[in-house]
Amino acid sequence: MQKVKVAVLGGSGYTAVELIKLLLRHPGAEIAAVTSRQAEHVADLHPSLLGRLDLQCEPFDPDALKAKGVQVAFGCLPHGTSMESIPPLLDRGIRVIDLSADYRLRDATVYQEWYKETHHDAENLAHAVYGLPEVYGDTLAGARLIANPGCYPQTAILGLAPLVANKLIELSGIVIDSKSGVSGAGRTPKLTTHFPECNESVSAYSVGTHRHTPEIEQALGDIAGAAVSVIFTPHLMPMDRGIFSTIYATPTKPVSEAELTALYRGYFAGKPFVRVRTAPPATKDTTGTNFLDVCVKVVRGKVLVLAAEDNLIRGASGVAVQNFNRVFGFPETTGLL
Amino acid sequence: MQKVKVAVLGGSGYTAVELIKLLLRHPGAEIAAVTSRQAEHVADLHPSLLGRLDLQCEPFDPDALKAKGVQVAFGCLPHGTSMESIPPLLDRGIRVIDLSADYRLRDATVYQEWYKETHHDAENLAHAVYGLPEVYGDTLAGARLIANPGCYPQTAILGLAPLVANKLIELSGIVIDSKSGVSGAGRTPKLTTHFPECNESVSAYSVGTHRHTPEIEQALGDIAGAAVSVIFTPHLMPMDRGIFSTIYATPTKPVSEAELTALYRGYFAGKPFVRVRTAPPATKDTTGTNFLDVCVKVVRGKVLVLAAEDNLIRGASGVAVQNFNRVFGFPETTGLL
Amino acid sequence: MQKVKVAVLGGSGYTAVELIKLLLRHPGAEIAAVTSRQAEHVADLHPSLLGRLDLQCEPFDPDALKAKGVQVAFGCLPHGTSMESIPPLLDRGIRVIDLSADYRLRDATVYQEWYKETHHDAENLAHAVYGLPEVYGDTLAGARLIANPGCYPQTAILGLAPLVANKLIELSGIVIDSKSGVSGAGRTPKLTTHFPECNESVSAYSVGTHRHTPEIEQALGDIAGAAVSVIFTPHLMPMDRGIFSTIYATPTKPVSEAELTALYRGYFAGKPFVRVRTAPPATKDTTGTNFLDVCVKVVRGKVLVLAAEDNLIRGASGVAVQNFNRVFGFPETTGLL
Amino acid sequence: MQKVKVAVLGGSGYTAVELIKLLLRHPGAEIAAVTSRQAEHVADLHPSLLGRLDLQCEPFDPDALKAKGVQVAFGCLPHGTSMESIPPLLDRGIRVIDLSADYRLRDATVYQEWYKETHHDAENLAHAVYGLPEVYGDTLAGARLIANPGCYPQTAILGLAPLVANKLIELSGIVIDSKSGVSGAGRTPKLTTHFPECNESVSAYSVGTHRHTPEIEQALGDIAGAAVSVIFTPHLMPMDRGIFSTIYATPTKPVSEAELTALYRGYFAGKPFVRVRTAPPATKDTTGTNFLDVCVKVVRGKVLVLAAEDNLIRGASGVAVQNFNRVFGFPETTGLL
Repeated sequence: MQKVKVAVLGGSGYTAVELIKLLLRHPGAEIAAVTSRQAEHVADLHPSLLGRLDLQCEPFDPDALKAKGVQVAFGCLPHGTSMESIPPLLDRGIRVIDLSADYRLRDATVYQEWYKETHHDAENLAHAVYGLPEVYGDTLAGARLIANPGCYPQTAILGLAPLVANKLIELSGIVIDSKSGVSGAGRTPKLTTHFPECNESVSAYSVGTHRHTPEIEQALGDIAGAAVSVIFTPHLMPMDRGIFSTIYATPTKPVSEAELTALYRGYFAGKPFVRVRTAPPATKDTTGTNFLDVCVKVVRGKVLVLAAEDNLIRGASGVAVQNFNRVFGFPETTGLL
Repeated sequence: MQKVKVAVLGGSGYTAVELIKLLLRHPGAEIAAVTSRQAEHVADLHPSLLGRLDLQCEPFDPDALKAKGVQVAFGCLPHGTSMESIPPLLDRGIRVIDLSADYRLRDATVYQEWYKETHHDAENLAHAVYGLPEVYGDTLAGARLIANPGCYPQTAILGLAPLVANKLIELSGIVIDSKSGVSGAGRTPKLTTHFPECNESVSAYSVGTHRHTPEIEQALGDIAGAAVSVIFTPHLMPMDRGIFSTIYATPTKPVSEAELTALYRGYFAGKPFVRVRTAPPATKDTTGTNFLDVCVKVVRGKVLVLAAEDNLIRGASGVAVQNFNRVFGFPETTGLL
Repeated sequence: MQKVKVAVLGGSGYTAVELIKLLLRHPGAEIAAVTSRQAEHVADLHPSLLGRLDLQCEPFDPDALKAKGVQVAFGCLPHGTSMESIPPLLDRGIRVIDLSADYRLRDATVYQEWYKETHHDAENLAHAVYGLPEVYGDTLAGARLIANPGCYPQTAILGLAPLVANKLIELSGIVIDSKSGVSGAGRTPKLTTHFPECNESVSAYSVGTHRHTPEIEQALGDIAGAAVSVIFTPHLMPMDRGIFSTIYATPTKPVSEAELTALYRGYFAGKPFVRVRTAPPATKDTTGTNFLDVCVKVVRGKVLVLAAEDNLIRGASGVAVQNFNRVFGFPETTGLL
Repeated sequence: MQKVKVAVLGGSGYTAVELIKLLLRHPGAEIAAVTSRQAEHVADLHPSLLGRLDLQCEPFDPDALKAKGVQVAFGCLPHGTSMESIPPLLDRGIRVIDLSADYRLRDATVYQEWYKETHHDAENLAHAVYGLPEVYGDTLAGARLIANPGCYPQTAILGLAPLVANKLIELSGIVIDSKSGVSGAGRTPKLTTHFPECNESVSAYSVGTHRHTPEIEQALGDIAGAAVSVIFTPHLMPMDRGIFSTIYATPTKPVSEAELTALYRGYFAGKPFVRVRTAPPATKDTTGTNFLDVCVKVVRGKVLVLAAEDNLIRGASGVAVQNFNRVFGFPETTGLL
């Protein structure tokens, strides 16, 4: 198998190191470059990579990446920075799978409203593809720019997709109560993620203002063919990784748990990374994997969906590799099982 | 100050040891007896008590407790066992503050439905008082049998009390999404609470079937003067203690966050253990205390209530001492600040 | 009881908030001032203090503290800063219990060697008293400047005191392997204490270079009446608080575990905060308390001492209150049980 | 590549599930059977295996395993049970890699002394091979019965091998202070591993009596060509997985850190799973991998070795696969990177 040459942009964070580990196991990928402002050896940034990847990080330079034959770059840069770095890569014919939020929202004014920044790259935004393979799979083969989906949104979108696709729930007032491990907050030290502050504690944050809200609504709106409105509340959990979303929706007609479970099994048939379960999942069942576990319940006339994933794998780097497989024609599970 | 002689029944669990620690600091209480099937020294059951309480546990014997002059017994026994042990104490004139669920539900058929056991003590159930001082405070002075409230219910009841008392929200379909530390599951080892199983993981349990549901509905119904129906979903968090409840309700008319916060401050004025905050609380702010922190938000037309407490103190042993203070006429905060 | 007016200097950190909580419960102390560069309400710095202490932090001003009638200041400032702030307080007749390292090492050149800073206050250093009540108790009554001991050193010094006092072990090559919770690193966010870095991980740090080494040796040298030399290795544990030290020493003559346990019980008789145990302690047994638990074992000819404490209480703020009690003539356990 | 048919015996525990995950990724292995007294689907025992291995557990039956063409069985049974189950497999020509302790100690009387059980299988014990590839690699190719090494011993043996092989340290009185995550205690719920007991706590256990002591001494004795005696103290850490050993030895002559590091690099050259580092490792750097990280320091005349590993992978299931690779002639790192 001819290996695809890949670059990882922004090598110092958690999604980058997870991505590197996945790519090292992928039979069709060769890591040609890792960029970072800290021009250190990757094993100095991430001691876990010692003995696994012998590579010096390099400054971001589109021409240098092109000269190395890089065919696709995985963007692990912060939002805002991403839309500065990605256009020159696309100009040079390098495909991009962007793990930031910069190309997820189709409408630049919505981006501006939630991210409080002007979008500078309307041109590429126009043909970016939202990389949630279970929903937008047909659009991914050969895509030039993929906006990798957010961690929380995947639990909400996949958790609700069978319901909204079949018009089984009311499309406004959907409650999404999400619980995330601390790695979701990134690798930059802050007081809120300082161990003695967040350990042994649970709290809610960004109540009513979290930026993943419009991303969830955009994708569910696509599936429903109508506007969807959610109340999304993220919470910080004292653990490294994992997202658990508990979703509360109002059915449009009486449904049974058995019917809904059958519906979910049908909807996700042939989608190897979504596991439909009848018992509530635990995030630990998905740790280190690209699986998203989902369970649907009916309680006192409400439909409850319980969805769990590893926020760094399924929620970021794993689905990025899944997208890579789609773009380059590898079987979907390559390197991910 | 003449000290009240107290007994702790069922001394081996977590609520018992927390209660003992609180009582040791209470200027008006003297621990006259701790009962346990394991007739060991309390410091063998709980090494943290070494050097603090030099007492041998004794088998449960109502006459022996009476002979020691015990005036009030705190019941830390499992439900079912409690209603066997408590009648002989009441018969001997010993007051009881029962931390189990046995006397919380006014209607014995509701008890049977949720706890899958027949209630054997209808007589005492008839005059048990529900020990949530902020709501039922007037009934506590001199009470003979107090049913100490459940851990989850307190966050839900106090979190919603100002809203339902003022008819500001719809009374059915209230969503209560609760997150609890593992100590809430008790001290008996089980696979689900084995460290490597529940550490670094979040999951939901007893979805739609948790026994605290009718307790929440009974108290909110009292406050509302009308039937209340809730969807209550408990989750297990990888931490020792703390409960965080995120509550979603539908207002009956438009309200602002500022109005609601003012309403809450008014409702809880003079109630020293409820702290109304404008920022979301963290369970850690309440750890080791009898405080229940509450914050009310309006998000896209829904009212959100965020409530946090220490499940062992406020959720069990602390509120038991608060009830003790009410029963015996001590200032409400005695031994609790 | 006439209350002593106290100030807490450097109110934003973990030792300060623990100290404030202890002082609020102390019947003989009144918190007259909390200083901080952040001139916020104490409950904004520490939400856990909401409803417990209604006080605005103020900038450090010795004259203002004097004007308020402050009789003693607890220093929770970083080392280096402490020795700038403390002399003006002493000059105004305000006693100081300093939780920093600035007055612990009698010899300023040793300070300079380990702390890489010049000591500027030789004058006060000369009459500072090392505040380890179980060893230096006689010197504390009425002391003007107390150097509160370090967290690690207390486990080592008290753990070894009976052995070195009785010349039962060789005085060089003593191995002290210590494990600490993350709060010992303070409240300033750093990568090493960022939750996803240190959670679920154990590592050693400052191997051979930790600043508590000379402090341990100084006190043990005092007890032995001869030079003592130790190999001290601290480790970071994924938990909030607690220190566990495992100490390995070579006996100078054959001894039995029973003899040593009896020796320890004798040595610590009348010292209410040291609990001699025959089973290995767990740090959790001491959490939230001023107890230091110690157990001595003989294994294959070596003497092992296992010592556990809460690093923020016994290791810092609790022993500071114990020192306060000694200075002002309160019973030693006042406010600490 | 012709796949080797393997069986996993005792499928319900942690080492079994880790082994299954590794074998699923191994290109040369096919899982033909998993045995368990609980005859459930593997995904019911371990929900994380859902969608990855569709296999019903079966009762242990040597003939059935033979009939399925099983070539090698991985024993994940408790000690004692292992030596009952393994002989019939060997009799049928099925090789065994045993993760229990039953065939590790060459001398059955030493086994009896430490494990308090009589050894019933002297015959097979006589030609069992100790499966630590970095030390006993030459003996592994084609071995019929491999005693997979213990988790703690590997950190001690590999951490000290270069020193004892070169007679650089005294062979008695070596102190091995080890810290382990809770998964090392197995999957059977006990009070000591109940989450609220061991979370947020550190303690020592089996002080002077841990069964890995003679295993460490046997292997180090082999390397030294002389008797070795150690003081081994294990501690329980509040984390899922990871072992960190801090080892203190007395050099027989003055050595520098640089010399020792060079010695270690030489000793482990060509051994892909031992990473020699100059900074202290953290267990997290090794989590989920078969790496053992080691760092050597000189502190005040003592030699300190810091060694870290994942107790379930390197400490058990990963090294079992490494042994499998050796036995069947696969490259050593197959399926492990």
